Amino acid sequence: MKTNIHRVRVGWGDCDPAKIVYYPNYYRWFDDATHALFRSVGLDIGALYAQYDIAGMPLMESSARYLSPSAFGDILEIESGVSSWQRKAFVISHTVTNNGRPAVQGSETRFWGLRHPDDPSRLKAGEIPAEIRRRFGAAEL
Amino acid sequence: MKTNIHRVRVGWGDCDPAKIVYYPNYYRWFDDATHALFRSVGLDIGALYAQYDIAGMPLMESSARYLSPSAFGDILEIESGVSSWQRKAFVISHTVTNNGRPAVQGSETRFWGLRHPDDPSRLKAGEIPAEIRRRFGAAEL
Amino acid sequence: MKTNIHRVRVGWGDCDPAKIVYYPNYYRWFDDATHALFRSVGLDIGALYAQYDIAGMPLMESSARYLSPSAFGDILEIESGVSSWQRKAFVISHTVTNNGRPAVQGSETRFWGLRHPDDPSRLKAGEIPAEIRRRFGAAEL
Amino acid sequence: MKTNIHRVRVGWGDCDPAKIVYYPNYYRWFDDATHALFRSVGLDIGALYAQYDIAGMPLMESSARYLSPSAFGDILEIESGVSSWQRKAFVISHTVTNNGRPAVQGSETRFWGLRHPDDPSRLKAGEIPAEIRRRFGAAEL
Repeated sequence: MKTNIHRVRVGWGDCDPAKIVYYPNYYRWFDDATHALFRSVGLDIGALYAQYDIAGMPLMESSARYLSPSAFGDILEIESGVSSWQRKAFVISHTVTNNGRPAVQGSETRFWGLRHPDDPSRLKAGEIPAEIRRRFGAAEL
Repeated sequence: MKTNIHRVRVGWGDCDPAKIVYYPNYYRWFDDATHALFRSVGLDIGALYAQYDIAGMPLMESSARYLSPSAFGDILEIESGVSSWQRKAFVISHTVTNNGRPAVQGSETRFWGLRHPDDPSRLKAGEIPAEIRRRFGAAEL
Repeated sequence: MKTNIHRVRVGWGDCDPAKIVYYPNYYRWFDDATHALFRSVGLDIGALYAQYDIAGMPLMESSARYLSPSAFGDILEIESGVSSWQRKAFVISHTVTNNGRPAVQGSETRFWGLRHPDDPSRLKAGEIPAEIRRRFGAAEL
Repeated sequence: MKTNIHRVRVGWGDCDPAKIVYYPNYYRWFDDATHALFRSVGLDIGALYAQYDIAGMPLMESSARYLSPSAFGDILEIESGVSSWQRKAFVISHTVTNNGRPAVQGSETRFWGLRHPDDPSRLKAGEIPAEIRRRFGAAEL
């Protein structure tokens, strides 16, 4: 599995009155890390959206287990990789460490989001182009 | 299970360029909904933290399944309840509907966060006071 | 000046390790309060964007003076009104009080954001329709 | 004036349905840029807070002028410096450019936030230590 490491410095506003990271921020960073992972295999998501006329890669599921808290000024390393490819969806795994200490284990399941032909405000899952999977070194389906 | 309904109007900044809710915001709303649930049984979390000298109710796990997208201006109803009590932790289930349509199903597992006696920057799980469980109508352990 | 009051309950994640509101959140609430102000005169912004084919009401300037801090659980009242109309722009003033105590004084200068004819990714200021100003009871220009 | 450049990559969730940066995020980046400025002169804010027993550097005022929009994936450069020192407060100026194009001009006025002796939940302005000003090359008052 090709992985990429995305670094985040925990900001003052990322932490709550308990002086630890407010947990929804980890998902924001997972999203950033997924984009960084795509860039790391040469795929610019903005260009991708235009090229394939997709509206995004919306979430089907997301989850996280919190192993240790992090605080203002900490540098987090998020190692991300696509752990599973399906025809229209894929799972990204995110392993967050803080100075080598396991901090958070997360995952996102996303689908390839085409605009719905009957209603542009809706999205429908489309087939992930083979070229995309190839960039990640994934086998043919 | 006692439940509470917390309403959220989706803001402009809660949505992304695909014109749907940016998913980390759902977790922010889960957090707000958990606080609203506690208030609904007469427990003010700020007062609780002072009374029991806890630093918070940090997350052990969180997850969400996204069933349909929501957009700017939508009114979401989040029905929340404690679906499981353990000695030092509990699970809150969140069912989000958008004008009656299932939108997101989420859960948070939180522990009762005491300050660590040896290191105030760390938290350790403490026993959830019986009074807290009683307010939710939960059986004795 | 017609004004509207928008109420906000300060969330746990809205506060920082100093246990007061992290200041960028006030601007998020100003934005919500501006939308609430439009609704209060019968203008739904989503519908407005579709009707007039505008992409939004982007900011030209924003500012805030912080008069007293607010904390988790506080209920803020944001009183908002359009304090100045120009041909293509307008100023919204926001007065935030916390249980009657002055908390923040803010303002937003926004323009009427048409899509640029030559480049859909850009916005250009257009004339604010007379109907919009009338809803606020503003004089003709 | 000593300045520091802080780089930000605009994330997907930083943008709104108009496909441009949702403006409150600029203030979050100003806050990060101020912290980066302090680090650039050898001052770690976390350590500073502990050393001087301050609770933070809360805002008195903030403002921004928006010169051109930015979008998902853009790399912003925020050049920050302390443009004015007072006895208990200081002004940080932030100049944001996007690929060389002026994007936003912002400022923050902050005070040196001591815990109030009579009420730990309140903050009062204290004298900025001479050492801090010296690090920035500021003249004696």
